[in-house]
Amino acid sequence: MDAAESKNLPVVGMIGAGQLARMTHQAAIALGQSLRVLAADPGDPAALVCADVRPGAAVDLAALRAFSRGCSAVTFDHEGVPQENLRALVADGVAVHPEPGALLHAQDKLVMRRRLVELGIAVPPFAEVLEPGDVAAFLAEHGPSVLKAVRGGYDGRGVWMLDEPDAPLVAQLLAAGTPLMIEQRVAMRRELAALVARSPFGQASAWPVVETVQADGQCVQVLAPAPGLPEERAVQAQQLALRIAAELGVTGLLAVELFETDSGAVVVNELAMRPHNSGHWTIEGARTSQFEQHLRAVLDYPLGATTPTAPAVVMANVLGAAVPPVMGVDERMHHLFARFPDVKVHLYGKAERPARKVGHVTALGTDMAEVRVRAALAAEWLSTGEWSDGWSAHAGMREEANV
Amino acid sequence: MDAAESKNLPVVGMIGAGQLARMTHQAAIALGQSLRVLAADPGDPAALVCADVRPGAAVDLAALRAFSRGCSAVTFDHEGVPQENLRALVADGVAVHPEPGALLHAQDKLVMRRRLVELGIAVPPFAEVLEPGDVAAFLAEHGPSVLKAVRGGYDGRGVWMLDEPDAPLVAQLLAAGTPLMIEQRVAMRRELAALVARSPFGQASAWPVVETVQADGQCVQVLAPAPGLPEERAVQAQQLALRIAAELGVTGLLAVELFETDSGAVVVNELAMRPHNSGHWTIEGARTSQFEQHLRAVLDYPLGATTPTAPAVVMANVLGAAVPPVMGVDERMHHLFARFPDVKVHLYGKAERPARKVGHVTALGTDMAEVRVRAALAAEWLSTGEWSDGWSAHAGMREEANV
Repeated sequence: MDAAESKNLPVVGMIGAGQLARMTHQAAIALGQSLRVLAADPGDPAALVCADVRPGAAVDLAALRAFSRGCSAVTFDHEGVPQENLRALVADGVAVHPEPGALLHAQDKLVMRRRLVELGIAVPPFAEVLEPGDVAAFLAEHGPSVLKAVRGGYDGRGVWMLDEPDAPLVAQLLAAGTPLMIEQRVAMRRELAALVARSPFGQASAWPVVETVQADGQCVQVLAPAPGLPEERAVQAQQLALRIAAELGVTGLLAVELFETDSGAVVVNELAMRPHNSGHWTIEGARTSQFEQHLRAVLDYPLGATTPTAPAVVMANVLGAAVPPVMGVDERMHHLFARFPDVKVHLYGKAERPARKVGHVTALGTDMAEVRVRAALAAEWLSTGEWSDGWSAHAGMREEANV
Repeated sequence: MDAAESKNLPVVGMIGAGQLARMTHQAAIALGQSLRVLAADPGDPAALVCADVRPGAAVDLAALRAFSRGCSAVTFDHEGVPQENLRALVADGVAVHPEPGALLHAQDKLVMRRRLVELGIAVPPFAEVLEPGDVAAFLAEHGPSVLKAVRGGYDGRGVWMLDEPDAPLVAQLLAAGTPLMIEQRVAMRRELAALVARSPFGQASAWPVVETVQADGQCVQVLAPAPGLPEERAVQAQQLALRIAAELGVTGLLAVELFETDSGAVVVNELAMRPHNSGHWTIEGARTSQFEQHLRAVLDYPLGATTPTAPAVVMANVLGAAVPPVMGVDERMHHLFARFPDVKVHLYGKAERPARKVGHVTALGTDMAEVRVRAALAAEWLSTGEWSDGWSAHAGMREEANV
């Protein structure tokens, strides 16, 4: 074997160069690879740290084609890749994971819900909205609901809470060409997420089910495993996610966002087919991280062990503060490390703007309540430059968010 | 604060782009940074995965100066940086860590030994060799010994075992301009390593003391913690390493390679002032990896927790096989992952050549003997493409190496 052959390891191309691609690159390095990223902007989080950065946007088929040449597999770190472009790549012979027909269920909230209903999987009551009257009719039948853009919403964007029919809003959105759906607001205890991976061969693996703590429509903390979730319910949620992955033909990661209802049942909220915020805890908290697992899955490698490394793991997002801190982020890091030498920090190289995810922290331990306080304090400090001792504002949002 | 300021995180420059720089880049990414590397070759392990790669060699002062401009701290992944170049950078105002006066002790085996003797720290009997007669005299007094190049040797290179004075060899080496020393061959149980970090502020931290298993002059396995080492001895070794770091003014990492003698005492073998092969296990096996810790230390951040994440951790080097395997490395990865879903793999992007370190694997668990077999099997498979079940050849070398 000559030198070149012996180094012959695969090249994964990731469309998008956000923090998910950035962290996937860290995992790729260990596997002897170097992630190729398609970056819309040279300042994107992954573009700042990757060796193989190709400029271009997911909507540009010519750029996608040039990008895909020489890739062993092509995947993405966001859902905003047009179906027609992915189908063109598949027609070119590119190994796209997940394939466009599967991805569609993470791109289109109506397609996803209709498919899950066909499969007999529980989702909240929903309806397509074609005119303002559809909203009024749905509210009359189902009470307080959530209006959602069928495509493109995330982190609270593209979501409107409706107690009364808001005909002007609905008319305005429809006039702007936004496809809409409406869904009953579920009376729930909390939100959960089940993260699984599936390879083209059909091997699948699941991490422990987590609780995702929300505030203002955004995930602020992830608790692994979900505290107090009965083993039987956790296994059910894992099996649900594995079944969805198999039925939809997902390759790579699948995150199933769930509502745990007041009766203790789970219903599906959203799907994502890529590394997901609810899985960042796996970098330190599981034997195989979601980023490594995504690479293994899209390359059809056997999957890695998902065993947790600690009884309690908490990931807390670092969000840009409403009021920019006086102290620079480097100085905040100094103080954070001095106080919590065991908290792991991940910063994404992004400028701070209010509510923008600019990083996350992970704390590990044996007592969930203690670990949670530590993660919340660390994230809030990095965000605001202020210590909020005792039970932090972030952590305290849990109860409010679950109304 | 504007966007640019909020992203204002430090830039560490690492002279050298081998696997140590490659793994340091992974740690830098989490800290919001992007490691800058000086690469002698664009195919170097770190050059393949880093975004900020500057071509150049450590012996080229102009290249070093250009490289250092804009760096918050400059460090290195090997000892081959000329003192005069580092001193010139310091004179320019560059923050070089460790400073050249400290590094000298990792570059020059005689300077190091003389300094440790001054400090009252145990080293094996040694002498400078200026002519072949010095070797004969030393052997007559101390018995079987080791002839060493004073500078530049590693992984069994620059080291010659001598039972009899080999006057032609010594004369030939001296004639070639190789400064030499001789050291008594210590009757020992095994080799240990104590890894510590120290910041400019003077904060220091130590990982558990490990056993380094050698074969053919090269480390093949690292067992963390060193099996059967009494707690009191382990603490002594840690304190020894912390004292050396403080006395020599080391900033960044310090690896102290030790011999455990037949009487159970430890004597110092060699020093390294950078991330070290004996610390690769910390990536998964400790709360803070040696790579993150080195960055924190050279940036004068508070240091991270060194708590182990499992009771038994084994790192095994993947060495190029004497006979190249028929199966390519990608196929070997498939089989490895299928058999050991929980073993973590790190490949360096290097072509395979006999005995060359091309990667490492890490296994974790509770029973050292079981973990060791797993790591040995995995490393040997990746190296040779052959499973050697039961007690592997690598692991079996332990007893032989400790003669």
